[in-house]
Amino acid sequence: MTTTTDDARTNGVDTATLLATLDAVKGQPEIAEFQFRATNTWLGGTHSRSSFWGFHGAMQEMEHKHLTEVDADHPAVLVGQDEAPTPVEHLLHAIAACLTSGIANIAAVRGIQLTRVSSTVEGDIDLLGILGLSDGSVRNGYQQLKVTFHVEGDADDATLRGIVEQSRRRSAVYDVLTQPTFVAIEVVTG
Amino acid sequence: MTTTTDDARTNGVDTATLLATLDAVKGQPEIAEFQFRATNTWLGGTHSRSSFWGFHGAMQEMEHKHLTEVDADHPAVLVGQDEAPTPVEHLLHAIAACLTSGIANIAAVRGIQLTRVSSTVEGDIDLLGILGLSDGSVRNGYQQLKVTFHVEGDADDATLRGIVEQSRRRSAVYDVLTQPTFVAIEVVTG
Repeated sequence: MTTTTDDARTNGVDTATLLATLDAVKGQPEIAEFQFRATNTWLGGTHSRSSFWGFHGAMQEMEHKHLTEVDADHPAVLVGQDEAPTPVEHLLHAIAACLTSGIANIAAVRGIQLTRVSSTVEGDIDLLGILGLSDGSVRNGYQQLKVTFHVEGDADDATLRGIVEQSRRRSAVYDVLTQPTFVAIEVVTG
Repeated sequence: MTTTTDDARTNGVDTATLLATLDAVKGQPEIAEFQFRATNTWLGGTHSRSSFWGFHGAMQEMEHKHLTEVDADHPAVLVGQDEAPTPVEHLLHAIAACLTSGIANIAAVRGIQLTRVSSTVEGDIDLLGILGLSDGSVRNGYQQLKVTFHVEGDADDATLRGIVEQSRRRSAVYDVLTQPTFVAIEVVTG
């Protein structure tokens, strides 16, 4: 899908408000402290469903416009019911979507009208790790991810590549995947 | 949602097939080499959509039972249209779903019938990083994630906690989030 040129909203991004938001955060950095949340419910087997609704940001509790539910499951070959993509596939969505949002915002601020941004993400994983069949040399997670972008717009190759590179530098999901992130797990039983 | 007790499929998990699969992989480790994939399309602004369909595993190309599409967007406070959860919220789904699948499988193999597994995930992020307003001390991604599980079943507290801990040890998503994962980005333009 492509967007039409609209000077007021290049790439569908409200650039004026985006720049005003940046200025507001500069003046009051606490409004940049966010907490995102999901609640997940087991549905049986390896199938579960997450709901997204509220989050904290800009020094207040906020709600999304819509409640969203997203499922995950294991495929039949891994003895699931294949009701939904696997948890690790959702990571692929997260990295593609994060980089794409950044590309659209950065291009808009730079005055570049994009006509196409699409990507494929491939993640290689050796399941010997999660199956407990490795001697410790095989990690549980992806060995590597590869994101291939197709980007078109009213700019030359170097400019478009520079936008993708700047998106990578500012990507929250890229950072979480490539740098260690602490994950605390608490358990309540009974 | 709870599952009913069924000796043949504890927790909705086909334990016999799961153990047979483990044996098959032991005999032929190459079948554990998987590649998962997503394709993402920009829809305008910060809104994009990923599709999940094919993957490689067990030495062959495979397809999911259903094509799944999942959207992402930025919320209005971050100058998006809030059509879907943010990319970083999808990471919260991934970690909850991965740990939950593991809990169900591990409990089944251990003969524990679960009656409830639910979780909340909270991710703290300071947007000074992604907004480019930090002096470098604020990372782009989550500062930390916290997963809180509620687990109930026909086992004592220590046994249920041990199942969650074993799921953490074998979780692909936990590994990707807590350990560095290489992400290659290629760009095709024009």
